[in-house]
Amino acid sequence: VTDTVTSTAADVGERIQPPFLVYFGDVTELGFAKTGLGLIEWRREQCLGQRRLPGCILNGGIQEMSIDDAIEVGVKTVVVGVAPAGGVLPQEWIEDLAYAAKRGLNIASGLHTRLSDSGEIAAAASDSGARLIDVRIPPEELPIGTGIRRSGRRLLTVGTDCAVGKKYTALAIEKEMIARGLNAKFRASGQTGIMIAGQGIPIDSVVADFVAGAAECLSPPAEADHWDLIEGQGALMHPSYAGVSLGLLHGSQPDALVICHDPARQYCIGTAEEAGYELPSLAETISINLQLARRVNPDARFVGVSLNSSRISEDEYKARLIQYGEELGLPVVDPIRDGTGAIVDRLLEEFL
Amino acid sequence: VTDTVTSTAADVGERIQPPFLVYFGDVTELGFAKTGLGLIEWRREQCLGQRRLPGCILNGGIQEMSIDDAIEVGVKTVVVGVAPAGGVLPQEWIEDLAYAAKRGLNIASGLHTRLSDSGEIAAAASDSGARLIDVRIPPEELPIGTGIRRSGRRLLTVGTDCAVGKKYTALAIEKEMIARGLNAKFRASGQTGIMIAGQGIPIDSVVADFVAGAAECLSPPAEADHWDLIEGQGALMHPSYAGVSLGLLHGSQPDALVICHDPARQYCIGTAEEAGYELPSLAETISINLQLARRVNPDARFVGVSLNSSRISEDEYKARLIQYGEELGLPVVDPIRDGTGAIVDRLLEEFL
Repeated sequence: VTDTVTSTAADVGERIQPPFLVYFGDVTELGFAKTGLGLIEWRREQCLGQRRLPGCILNGGIQEMSIDDAIEVGVKTVVVGVAPAGGVLPQEWIEDLAYAAKRGLNIASGLHTRLSDSGEIAAAASDSGARLIDVRIPPEELPIGTGIRRSGRRLLTVGTDCAVGKKYTALAIEKEMIARGLNAKFRASGQTGIMIAGQGIPIDSVVADFVAGAAECLSPPAEADHWDLIEGQGALMHPSYAGVSLGLLHGSQPDALVICHDPARQYCIGTAEEAGYELPSLAETISINLQLARRVNPDARFVGVSLNSSRISEDEYKARLIQYGEELGLPVVDPIRDGTGAIVDRLLEEFL
Repeated sequence: VTDTVTSTAADVGERIQPPFLVYFGDVTELGFAKTGLGLIEWRREQCLGQRRLPGCILNGGIQEMSIDDAIEVGVKTVVVGVAPAGGVLPQEWIEDLAYAAKRGLNIASGLHTRLSDSGEIAAAASDSGARLIDVRIPPEELPIGTGIRRSGRRLLTVGTDCAVGKKYTALAIEKEMIARGLNAKFRASGQTGIMIAGQGIPIDSVVADFVAGAAECLSPPAEADHWDLIEGQGALMHPSYAGVSLGLLHGSQPDALVICHDPARQYCIGTAEEAGYELPSLAETISINLQLARRVNPDARFVGVSLNSSRISEDEYKARLIQYGEELGLPVVDPIRDGTGAIVDRLLEEFL
């Protein structure tokens, strides 16, 4: 991807320098592996190898290597692609990562604890000049949002719930647009996305007053034909995270929106069943997103529906494609099954 | 006000202990005086005196006193009721406040810089055991919002814009309800409100992911006939702060809402005129607030309109009362001119 925009690194967070060694440590739960596996899936060419300690159950399917091997083949950054159970770095990892830092490798981490909280890693990095990048820490000195329209085009993925494929969909649209020779760039708003993009802002970690301002920085002014494909966060109808979603929606000023949905899900994720937060309908979610988006971009409109169909049958999937397509008048895809070509077609129809 | 709820101090921030000495220092701009003057207006009986240094242009109209006088009459907390120009504490203030802390007075401040950032004040407080309370700093360990309905009743003030009287209106409704012997408590979400209430959470300083959770803590479960009167923040149609407003709306789960409006204002405060953010209409603002509020409380409804009429003529004011009343079917008041009796009447009609 060629970055067509003049934007400082500070706009969208620190740049994580490829190529990478993906660090899995001795993690024993698949659920913790999102970042490392996502990085390998979407930036395979930048991942020169993986490092697994004895007992690790994960396998990214790429070359195993030691820290020394990684330096040999030109790795610049070790990406800690998993969270250890309990969030605390085990001593074996600390020793391993401190050795990498001592040898001059940068380390990027999405852990809750800062890398520099480990005196051993901090000292090693300080000696060698290696950089320690905590992707959960937002940039300092973010501005208040201005609402002023900026040049270039923007697409934002939103959802009927959290964790319904907003990141995946934005990445899949980026891939499709770049394959067609279009001027497009994925913009990451969460930790896994930031690892994949190499930069971005963890929107949900920003102080509330600055969320819209952070979103404005995340997607800076661009050339007229450039599309930023912005990873959504949370969901406007989710009782825990709607404020994050609205700040990101306003700051993104999207021209185009894509709605992501899991037809097998009944209640909003993370809410107690007795609280009664059933998933809102697609139509309702589209309506409330448009009402709010049009405050900052009167021309905002939806260009597609992205389904996560992993938990429904083939027959039900086909039925949903027809049902949603008729109901909403939008192309409907599961990006894993079908790609996002139909959504990009609609995007071009609407905006060319 | 009797607190009818079993809530720990941690729920709603640290308690600021009355009675108070209101500290104006040598401030030379009226615009910086909101907190001190608000405290005297709403909690006159708790303000035993004011402290002004030579050159101070502000006068709260209460007893002048030195730190020694304040100790003599039983003051427990010095409230820094103004922000110095540039936000940095002048050396004279530091000496004065360090002396107060040394003598055992607590100090509460709404400044951007922490009181403990001054080594002199921190050392004095540490010696005497005085507490330093920075009301802009949210409590640690706030939870994620759950959306689970809780007992008791809640009213939230919202606005067509920021700075249209949301705090004033909530305080005026508290005053009216208490005068009628009702079970009501003002809940503060901003620094001036927190000084007045003695506790609260500065919602706009909370990390985005935790805003709804903070709002849930701010207004904890209560007796069935208890009303929390929650100070709103920002505005859903303001391009800079809407996310804060939505998190607070969801976490508050309001039964009743009051909309605040300044009829003389044309553009959203803080936005550039060329950005074109005209104030939304009352009807539009009510509609979007209700749609979003009903996600967490299907019974949410508006019970009144609170106007800030300070910049319109008497004739225009009367015309607006009739116009808005007919348009919206709600009682309309300027709480400074008319009090909030008509709104409380409607509240009781709707919810008794």
